Amino acid sequence: MIELNIKTRYAETAQDGIIHHSSYIIYYETARIEYLKSKGININDLEKESILCPVVSLEAHYLKPLISQQEILVKVRLDSFSKVRFKILHEIFKEEEKCAYAITSHCFIDGNFKPIPIPAKLLNCFKLELSSE
Amino acid sequence: MIELNIKTRYAETAQDGIIHHSSYIIYYETARIEYLKSKGININDLEKESILCPVVSLEAHYLKPLISQQEILVKVRLDSFSKVRFKILHEIFKEEEKCAYAITSHCFIDGNFKPIPIPAKLLNCFKLELSSE
Amino acid sequence: MIELNIKTRYAETAQDGIIHHSSYIIYYETARIEYLKSKGININDLEKESILCPVVSLEAHYLKPLISQQEILVKVRLDSFSKVRFKILHEIFKEEEKCAYAITSHCFIDGNFKPIPIPAKLLNCFKLELSSE
Amino acid sequence: MIELNIKTRYAETAQDGIIHHSSYIIYYETARIEYLKSKGININDLEKESILCPVVSLEAHYLKPLISQQEILVKVRLDSFSKVRFKILHEIFKEEEKCAYAITSHCFIDGNFKPIPIPAKLLNCFKLELSSE
Repeated sequence: MIELNIKTRYAETAQDGIIHHSSYIIYYETARIEYLKSKGININDLEKESILCPVVSLEAHYLKPLISQQEILVKVRLDSFSKVRFKILHEIFKEEEKCAYAITSHCFIDGNFKPIPIPAKLLNCFKLELSSE
Repeated sequence: MIELNIKTRYAETAQDGIIHHSSYIIYYETARIEYLKSKGININDLEKESILCPVVSLEAHYLKPLISQQEILVKVRLDSFSKVRFKILHEIFKEEEKCAYAITSHCFIDGNFKPIPIPAKLLNCFKLELSSE
Repeated sequence: MIELNIKTRYAETAQDGIIHHSSYIIYYETARIEYLKSKGININDLEKESILCPVVSLEAHYLKPLISQQEILVKVRLDSFSKVRFKILHEIFKEEEKCAYAITSHCFIDGNFKPIPIPAKLLNCFKLELSSE
Repeated sequence: MIELNIKTRYAETAQDGIIHHSSYIIYYETARIEYLKSKGININDLEKESILCPVVSLEAHYLKPLISQQEILVKVRLDSFSKVRFKILHEIFKEEEKCAYAITSHCFIDGNFKPIPIPAKLLNCFKLELSSE
């Protein structure tokens, strides 16, 4: 599990005065990339080898509005995994209050957009993470 | 049901060469606002009265990648509704192929972020839309 | 010279209720890519050959605010060019009123970020465009 | 003068593999809002009083490309000011290397988009900043 501090930005708001729901998707991705890096998976390096890790689906829930210039904490952890798919849970907290959460589902694909197995190194990290809970 | 033609933009891609998954969320919203306008609900006017129509949750599925400068068709229709909540289904087509879809759940809230009933005008449109299927 | 109709989007606003100044930069690019396509230069194709056409500098002026759901017209034309650089003028109109404009300066670079001459095909179009004014 | 550390995000890239030029505009704004806060001007508070501080014009120069997941330093300082306008200089550094800079020009406007004088508190800070150089 990792935690990332983010400060919401002015440009991430919309005319209703609150952070736009699409901006959360960016916060989640930013924290997820740090999470994967903590497991030894650097997305920039993978992409140089033409391996992508796209979002297959996502489910996002918005509980409390966020405003700009707000310090938030994004917590990321593994939700579940198989040999080819994994799900990540992301939660956003403002002080101690949970404001939003999302589960994203991912796979790895090669340069021809064909699914490939989850890298062994990551799979081992996933096993460790779930068994240590 | 409404359909909106959108051309994907260069800036909506990311370094993997395809349209970023957060950009779809903007396409969906853009088409949904047209859908609501077709039902007599102008979001800009509502917000002048301090009434907001936020996304409470969303579920998005990505089936085929999109690239930049691509003509897509976004279809939007009502999925379901109650007195205070409604769900909208959005689908993205490239030529005849479905590339992505999402269901968003919405409510209406007043200036104090308190839920209020769906405006009667919209509720009537929703009844008509579902009964005409 | 080309003209592109764009409808401003909800998500392109910020909390001050108007279109964010960074969104104009996207409108300009979107129209500029159409302009280049009208000259036979497809950015997607160029990038497959590892040739990029980055923005070297830009100068943007904001005259009148834009709100969301607004139909705007973006006019794009060549401002000036040399063998390695060219400048593009972009103007945004709301009905007949000019609301903003920007000049961007560009070069072409190869996969090692080294400047290369403007493609001959484009250079010829530029000569034609300036001589026909 | 203030300095802000920012880490570039995946979603801020485009298909050419580098940070999109519009993303720099967001970095500049984010740092400028911190700069103004350091002078006692909180944009969120101002906007509650219907006072806006829009970008009137901007001039941006791109010297070296940035990639995603890159730690950058944004330096912001006053460039010049009059009673109604002020200009801010923003510079982006990657390690010790300057990669980009921009000058933005601003005014303050009231709820009717009429220019108003720069708040006295800020004007005093501006005088101090320029005299201390």
